[in-house]
Amino acid sequence: MNNDKENDSIKKFKKEREKLNDIVMRYGKINTKRFFNLDSNVYKKGALSSKTKELIGLVASLVLRCDDCILYHIIRCFEEGLSDEELEEALSIGLVVGGSITIPHVRRAYKHWEELKNKRSNQ
Amino acid sequence: MNNDKENDSIKKFKKEREKLNDIVMRYGKINTKRFFNLDSNVYKKGALSSKTKELIGLVASLVLRCDDCILYHIIRCFEEGLSDEELEEALSIGLVVGGSITIPHVRRAYKHWEELKNKRSNQ
Amino acid sequence: MNNDKENDSIKKFKKEREKLNDIVMRYGKINTKRFFNLDSNVYKKGALSSKTKELIGLVASLVLRCDDCILYHIIRCFEEGLSDEELEEALSIGLVVGGSITIPHVRRAYKHWEELKNKRSNQ
Amino acid sequence: MNNDKENDSIKKFKKEREKLNDIVMRYGKINTKRFFNLDSNVYKKGALSSKTKELIGLVASLVLRCDDCILYHIIRCFEEGLSDEELEEALSIGLVVGGSITIPHVRRAYKHWEELKNKRSNQ
Amino acid sequence: MNNDKENDSIKKFKKEREKLNDIVMRYGKINTKRFFNLDSNVYKKGALSSKTKELIGLVASLVLRCDDCILYHIIRCFEEGLSDEELEEALSIGLVVGGSITIPHVRRAYKHWEELKNKRSNQ
Amino acid sequence: MNNDKENDSIKKFKKEREKLNDIVMRYGKINTKRFFNLDSNVYKKGALSSKTKELIGLVASLVLRCDDCILYHIIRCFEEGLSDEELEEALSIGLVVGGSITIPHVRRAYKHWEELKNKRSNQ
Repeated sequence: MNNDKENDSIKKFKKEREKLNDIVMRYGKINTKRFFNLDSNVYKKGALSSKTKELIGLVASLVLRCDDCILYHIIRCFEEGLSDEELEEALSIGLVVGGSITIPHVRRAYKHWEELKNKRSNQ
Repeated sequence: MNNDKENDSIKKFKKEREKLNDIVMRYGKINTKRFFNLDSNVYKKGALSSKTKELIGLVASLVLRCDDCILYHIIRCFEEGLSDEELEEALSIGLVVGGSITIPHVRRAYKHWEELKNKRSNQ
Repeated sequence: MNNDKENDSIKKFKKEREKLNDIVMRYGKINTKRFFNLDSNVYKKGALSSKTKELIGLVASLVLRCDDCILYHIIRCFEEGLSDEELEEALSIGLVVGGSITIPHVRRAYKHWEELKNKRSNQ
Repeated sequence: MNNDKENDSIKKFKKEREKLNDIVMRYGKINTKRFFNLDSNVYKKGALSSKTKELIGLVASLVLRCDDCILYHIIRCFEEGLSDEELEEALSIGLVVGGSITIPHVRRAYKHWEELKNKRSNQ
Repeated sequence: MNNDKENDSIKKFKKEREKLNDIVMRYGKINTKRFFNLDSNVYKKGALSSKTKELIGLVASLVLRCDDCILYHIIRCFEEGLSDEELEEALSIGLVVGGSITIPHVRRAYKHWEELKNKRSNQ
Repeated sequence: MNNDKENDSIKKFKKEREKLNDIVMRYGKINTKRFFNLDSNVYKKGALSSKTKELIGLVASLVLRCDDCILYHIIRCFEEGLSDEELEEALSIGLVVGGSITIPHVRRAYKHWEELKNKRSNQ
């Protein structure tokens, strides 16, 4: 079945990310560590909801064209219960702001979104 | 009084923008016109509110470091009733995603925000 | 023989692109679809030839450093009958405008160009 | 009359550019000088015409969003006899590739184009 | 005399920067403040000298093409006693890495360097 | 043992790079060749040491987010005897200047650094 492989691609990403973060934390000193803390703090619920913040992070990552960052925020948006319609509207803003150069990333964003949905519906 | 000048900087931006858009529309053919239409359509209320869409547009403009685009979305966010706290949280995401290279733009974003607030409180 | 594998790398790219475009079109609404239309319309022959437009698209993709976009335009330039000399002159503009950071993409652009030429000469 | 001022904006750009190039050449050693030579050599007529090369340089500058570079290539394209239609088609490729973030630069590109045309028709 | 005006351009930059930082600090909450702290901490002398760190900051700012950031680091490099030769070598790396799109910024970097030198020799 | 595989990832990168450079040199004419020469000349020892120049090249590559360029300079920094502390300080500048969007590249930079160290300690 196809879903096991798809399931794996998300799992593999998370595992690799964790493994590499361990290396960073081994070398990183106070400034690196503070930056990583800051990077998780800015997405915490405040005046804006976590969902809105993750959407902002997603589109910022899209226009800057960073696949790892996009996938990370796609997973987080999924966890925050984003709907297909909300995703599409956010990605279409990114597409228009960032131009056709973002298309390959938009493609992969939807592919990962579909993987996440398939994974859930197979549980 | 200081506010007249500040008031002017927003007015001047809008006027210049309109004047230049006229030139673009004079030269622009179907593809250029369709792009401009698309550029206003993606921010229209849908599954996501206008406010959320403008916030996304603002942070996308910040990480891509385009002052004109930032000012445009700052004005729109102000019109959509964004609070100081919401602005700060959105800009801090942009700051962390885009790095210190965005700081000059963050500075000008807050300056324009203050101008918009002063302008309103002087009406 | 080497060419079968090379042949495959172009074929694989086209197939993957098509598969992902299907996913985009399934999720994409009117704005996404209009953007994709616009993206193919701007390269259509007009006052400028298709070849010139593809060359412009190629170098724009190179300086923005998007491998998928570069490969797409390399294939299109090949179909439009671009010569080796024309390719080299266009890529050297991209190299000088975009700097050494584009070198890894220039390398892969020539590799794909060679694959396309080998593929043809083996038919 | 309006044209004198417009005329000046192009003249002023050229003069400032020359003045600053003098400073660069005073400090610049062999590598800097070679880079500047390379930067003018890649636009020289070869397998591709000067006009095509300037168009490529223009759109590359547009998607990288460098106003000075855009103005330089707009002037060169004008000197090479580019038509309004050719300009519009090239800029619309840049607009679609680079996204709405390029719009402020597209606006200024057309403004300068108009200045160049007014300047000529007033001679 | 010319130097008073040049002197002013550096002074004016510093004053505007300070004024805008005040606005940022008025709106900025904990994450913004921590980012600003981090931004000054990473340039502090450690295993690498302040001069080397400022050089790194300068070239990073050059390839990302942020004039305010370049000017800030040019001033800091000047304060750290950087020589003309060291500056030229660092900027030529930035020029080659970032390409001709950085040239307008390289021009302004040398102009500001000259202003700083003139300012000192007139004290 | 793990190191053989790691050893391979560096070896493989160097081999692929060489192979592709051969293709570039086969197609490249005078301007392309001059650019490649310039690209190696700017890192040669002068008023600044090779180590400082490689560090500058590394951080410039990091903020521009080019994995191949980062790996190349990581290898060169390793050859120039950079210490862990110096690396960490340089990368933390890149992280702060370029923002969280550079994190995936920072992760891979440390991973490659570790591979280089393991490789040496296993010789």
